[in-house]
Amino acid sequence: MPHLHLEYTANLPDLNADVALMRLNNALVASGQFGAEFDIKSRAIKVETFKVGTALAERAFVHVKLALLSGRSPQIKQQLSESLLAVVKELCEWPVGVEVQLCVELLDIDRESYTKTAIGV
Amino acid sequence: MPHLHLEYTANLPDLNADVALMRLNNALVASGQFGAEFDIKSRAIKVETFKVGTALAERAFVHVKLALLSGRSPQIKQQLSESLLAVVKELCEWPVGVEVQLCVELLDIDRESYTKTAIGV
Amino acid sequence: MPHLHLEYTANLPDLNADVALMRLNNALVASGQFGAEFDIKSRAIKVETFKVGTALAERAFVHVKLALLSGRSPQIKQQLSESLLAVVKELCEWPVGVEVQLCVELLDIDRESYTKTAIGV
Repeated sequence: MPHLHLEYTANLPDLNADVALMRLNNALVASGQFGAEFDIKSRAIKVETFKVGTALAERAFVHVKLALLSGRSPQIKQQLSESLLAVVKELCEWPVGVEVQLCVELLDIDRESYTKTAIGV
Repeated sequence: MPHLHLEYTANLPDLNADVALMRLNNALVASGQFGAEFDIKSRAIKVETFKVGTALAERAFVHVKLALLSGRSPQIKQQLSESLLAVVKELCEWPVGVEVQLCVELLDIDRESYTKTAIGV
Repeated sequence: MPHLHLEYTANLPDLNADVALMRLNNALVASGQFGAEFDIKSRAIKVETFKVGTALAERAFVHVKLALLSGRSPQIKQQLSESLLAVVKELCEWPVGVEVQLCVELLDIDRESYTKTAIGV
């Protein structure tokens, strides 16, 4: 906890996913919401097959999903979402002539049934 | 919003993922539940490593996950699920001798902490 | 139902994803919680682009997400989570000098809007 998934469509050639994850993790650490930086587990997925809407215009999206153990206030979640969206906006030069949607979603992980262990720490 | 994920196992060679997304998006637009076709963001993931159950029979699955901003009625969600399943059933000729499961899942996105912006629109 | 997703980072060369899914499915059948082994649909995703925390140490993770139709008790979910974590711990020799986190998350699928059909059964 937390788990972050970054999805980005394949038509965003200037988006560097490694750099993106580093910046998103830094924003999460800076939020002060997480005890240990070690706990933040993030991954990026390039989406090769996608379709936005039904029109023919070229479109793209970046979607961040942050899953947190349940119990945080709506206000804290809103702040986290906004701070991640601010990072996403600055991730790269967005391609000209492409409609790009950037979204951040937060969701709760059921705390009671979450189990975890660490090896080699 | 909405976000659609289509997962399909790699042993369904006749399933064309691009066509599938177009048809699913068309069904969502036709539902009248979404203000702008532009908002529908769909992606397809071919699942290369999978296991259905524990038996040796050849099996496959297609799984659609539709994430919606919270607040829609159970009835609307059921209708959306059924209309997407109807699309999935007709996606391709299913391979002979393979047990194929088709499923549609709807889930809510927490509305308060969802943030979004659009670039180049 | 149930749907299982196994994510594992690409720096775990000894983890055999096919074997992992078979063992996880066997644990689910052994739990006695599911009517038919056929219903268990599992997939594995190797995560190539990831970042754990912000430090430079080499790190890895394995994350199992099990999605169940809503209605099971917290106790049952906790037991399922623990039994899956026990399987994950034994999946392979973990690499020396790497901090590996193993996690299991359970989540509910909205029962009313879940639709499903089977072909060729």
